[in-house]
Amino acid sequence: MSERGLLIVFSGPSGVGKGTVRQEIFSTPDHKFEYSVSMTTRPQRPGEVDGVDYFFRSREEFEDLIRQGQMLEYAEYVGNYYGTPLSYVNETLDKGIDVFLEIEVQGALQVKKKVPDGVFIFLTPPDLEELQDRLVGRGTDSEEVIAKRIERAKEEIALMREYDYAVVNDEVALAAERVKRIIETEHFRVERVIGHYDNMIKATVKR
Amino acid sequence: MSERGLLIVFSGPSGVGKGTVRQEIFSTPDHKFEYSVSMTTRPQRPGEVDGVDYFFRSREEFEDLIRQGQMLEYAEYVGNYYGTPLSYVNETLDKGIDVFLEIEVQGALQVKKKVPDGVFIFLTPPDLEELQDRLVGRGTDSEEVIAKRIERAKEEIALMREYDYAVVNDEVALAAERVKRIIETEHFRVERVIGHYDNMIKATVKR
Repeated sequence: MSERGLLIVFSGPSGVGKGTVRQEIFSTPDHKFEYSVSMTTRPQRPGEVDGVDYFFRSREEFEDLIRQGQMLEYAEYVGNYYGTPLSYVNETLDKGIDVFLEIEVQGALQVKKKVPDGVFIFLTPPDLEELQDRLVGRGTDSEEVIAKRIERAKEEIALMREYDYAVVNDEVALAAERVKRIIETEHFRVERVIGHYDNMIKATVKR
Repeated sequence: MSERGLLIVFSGPSGVGKGTVRQEIFSTPDHKFEYSVSMTTRPQRPGEVDGVDYFFRSREEFEDLIRQGQMLEYAEYVGNYYGTPLSYVNETLDKGIDVFLEIEVQGALQVKKKVPDGVFIFLTPPDLEELQDRLVGRGTDSEEVIAKRIERAKEEIALMREYDYAVVNDEVALAAERVKRIIETEHFRVERVIGHYDNMIKATVKR
């Protein structure tokens, strides 16, 4: 079976813990997919590595790539661009390897228009109060920015219905396990394997 | 969340090993669903227990239940009726408990018409030659019956496209694990949980 890889789009409101869950998924040896590093114009935070956490680029460089049609999706969020370089994604899927995108909600909806058979997973907070606590605890944002993000989170959760799956981030290890299982079981979906079985039926049975 | 239970319909060609995989699933302590025992008019095989493997009923009793509309599905197969009593299934789903049906392919298609949001899982042989070997090895059927069943299996595999998932029965323990994971991840599907999140958004965030 030389099936094309699955495009897995992992998203959710800002502050829900997408990055932490993604790191947990990729820290276990049993994942079988490649992580697509996003590109951003936001400042690098302490401990973040260029080419690992994000490709950190200037606004000018990012806008050049948009003009060249080299972004699968991009969004401007709290004054910065975030996006996914197109060429890497397509090359990897063509090799039969699944690609895992961790992106913001607006970007995910752009990808859905271009790749409707992707697997769209939405990470949700157990509740909105916990999301607020997390944003405060992170200590990187002002009170005003946090208030904006909570309002944005409510708008983003309303967009969940555009996704295939909702995973609650109650515990990082549990959420990571759920995401891995979703990716595993998506490979069993009939529409993804039917070609293989059509061929089996056509082959004559040896008596 | 007082979600209704999921109806899980586990099917596949005769001889593929549905019963063995189902027993493996139910022998592990981490399954969270109830098994719906089917009703049949076929003779009880050595070791089978009435009310556990099947409800064994006479042709007359079975036809009475059909006339009373008390069967979710039924089929006549190699001269015998097989079917699912309706009342038990509905009562269990209403309690929020998932119900697991192991049934023949024709019956599954009847259920799909009545319960389109069920989870339809098709167990497949790794290939048709192995299916033939298994039927011969079981020693319960004549050569003529086996030849009929292989032809029937090819027709049934062609019906796989009516299902949601295809699980290969290469190893019983692996197949059982895949089925359990499918059931687990189906609970994360957005259309099954969206009501809960709609309520979360409506609630006001405490500042």
